[in-house]
Amino acid sequence: MREAQSATPIERLVSATEADMAKVNELILSRAESHVEMVPELARYLIESGGKRLRPMLTVAAASLFGRGNGSAVNFAAAVEFMHNATLLHDDVVDDSDMRRGKPAARMVWGNKASILVGDFLLGQAFMMMVETGDIASLGVLSAASAVMAEGEVFQLAKTGDLDTTADDYAEVIRAKTAVLFEAACKVGAMAGGADAAGREALGIYGLELGTAFQLVDDALDYGGQSGTLGKNTGDDLREGKMTLPVILALANGTEAERAVIAAALGNAEASAEDVADVVAIMERHGALERTLEQAQAHARAAQDALVALPASEMRALLGDVVEFSVMRAF
Amino acid sequence: MREAQSATPIERLVSATEADMAKVNELILSRAESHVEMVPELARYLIESGGKRLRPMLTVAAASLFGRGNGSAVNFAAAVEFMHNATLLHDDVVDDSDMRRGKPAARMVWGNKASILVGDFLLGQAFMMMVETGDIASLGVLSAASAVMAEGEVFQLAKTGDLDTTADDYAEVIRAKTAVLFEAACKVGAMAGGADAAGREALGIYGLELGTAFQLVDDALDYGGQSGTLGKNTGDDLREGKMTLPVILALANGTEAERAVIAAALGNAEASAEDVADVVAIMERHGALERTLEQAQAHARAAQDALVALPASEMRALLGDVVEFSVMRAF
Repeated sequence: MREAQSATPIERLVSATEADMAKVNELILSRAESHVEMVPELARYLIESGGKRLRPMLTVAAASLFGRGNGSAVNFAAAVEFMHNATLLHDDVVDDSDMRRGKPAARMVWGNKASILVGDFLLGQAFMMMVETGDIASLGVLSAASAVMAEGEVFQLAKTGDLDTTADDYAEVIRAKTAVLFEAACKVGAMAGGADAAGREALGIYGLELGTAFQLVDDALDYGGQSGTLGKNTGDDLREGKMTLPVILALANGTEAERAVIAAALGNAEASAEDVADVVAIMERHGALERTLEQAQAHARAAQDALVALPASEMRALLGDVVEFSVMRAF
Repeated sequence: MREAQSATPIERLVSATEADMAKVNELILSRAESHVEMVPELARYLIESGGKRLRPMLTVAAASLFGRGNGSAVNFAAAVEFMHNATLLHDDVVDDSDMRRGKPAARMVWGNKASILVGDFLLGQAFMMMVETGDIASLGVLSAASAVMAEGEVFQLAKTGDLDTTADDYAEVIRAKTAVLFEAACKVGAMAGGADAAGREALGIYGLELGTAFQLVDDALDYGGQSGTLGKNTGDDLREGKMTLPVILALANGTEAERAVIAAALGNAEASAEDVADVVAIMERHGALERTLEQAQAHARAAQDALVALPASEMRALLGDVVEFSVMRAF
């Protein structure tokens, strides 16, 4: 770990996983290759667009915690990143998203059709990389995650704009669409590192809770986070009709008139910045953002608690700090 | 085999695989289940829409040829059918198809978004069923097929409406998008049945050649087949701008004026039945449909030749007849 103490936990994680991630990144680029030009063009456009690669870092970090590695963590890390990118390609089509990571979404450059098919290609390549490890148990973890993620996306789609969506429905959506891949990324890392059953379980819980906290924070940030500060992407979820916790809590606690204001903006792609500001004001009046972030903090604590079962190490401490940092970005 | 001699080879294959396919069909229905209602609704709508289930029948038939089965053929057969159906769901979105198997495509009922996501779900479930067998080698065959299929679809998309598409490009497209899954279906069946290396190889070639013949026939039928008889779906490929062999051969052999007629109709969703008839007339003038079907017959012979390496049996003879029948439907 070469970084100074002032580096953020994510920056320190980047340093701590640097050697493994160099191999992961090399594998990612080589497996995005194809004689069909559009495939690597589109795949690399997304892959190289500056995502943090948090999931594959978690996989190699989890493996390094146990250290009796079988060398397959690199393959699983690359596979996890491909699964994540395949999901992003399909999600952007499903959500009609124009932007991704600050630049036009791949579908805006190559079209929806290519985005669907290259997503399928990345998923197939992910499974090939897993197969190469010969580790059928880890393959089971990731294939189950793949099915659950898709199921969660369908559930979210079915609930789009549904004012009766409950906090439990929302918990189910974010577990399936986000937390399960974090869980799988950490668990297969632990497995590749030679963890015993307790170690796998602990890392699985760590990933699941971290992923849940992460998504809750994202969903609060979409309305400006704790401070309710409005930025250029504020209210995207509102315009798409996504039933996230801030909106569910605001609907549950708002007056009839406030519910009507939210309902009018929800799923309205043309909702103005003023409409969004009105909804955020309602959320603040009822503490909806605050309570969303309290839930995120509870899950963050659960993630940190899961680490206690493991022997103390610099990496264990760092994984604890990563959780803290993931939540702090909302404040 | 309970059917009379007058039954078609496909009907006889249905009878011969009846016991295994009952298990396959049960598995297919149970794995299309989900607590997210839209998932089984959409999946069953497609799955139960009267597809022949030729691919999974080939898997269990291939396994039965060798007979020292490890019982995993049923899982692989169901997985192959899920992969196929996932592809159909995505293809119908990519091709803007309104109809599938004589009824409105799933996307016309549940929308493009749900079709994309349920396709992803079926793919995840397919991999879970494969993982349950513990057979990593067969998983490798099917995950490679999955990536190649997606790659082939991107290649086809990139070539849409491209008048310079060659017969070699076309051969690559149909290998990837159709023949590779037939190859994998037969190969993993042989593997599940306990085939030796020569047996696996033979069944792989059989599947690849059968799949190629099958697609060539489909592509000729899209222009009315040998007789050029025009039906209600005649010319769908033309309107979608698909560069199939009949159109490639017609362009290569047509006069400047004829090329212009084809170019005007190609990719024109509004092309009339008369426009299609004009193109079919050009194809017939240059023997394009006839030559497409000659190629299909050559691949059909190669499929039958591959079977010669195997011990003679009733099932081996039936698989030979299936090839013949698949080609005959164009005449």
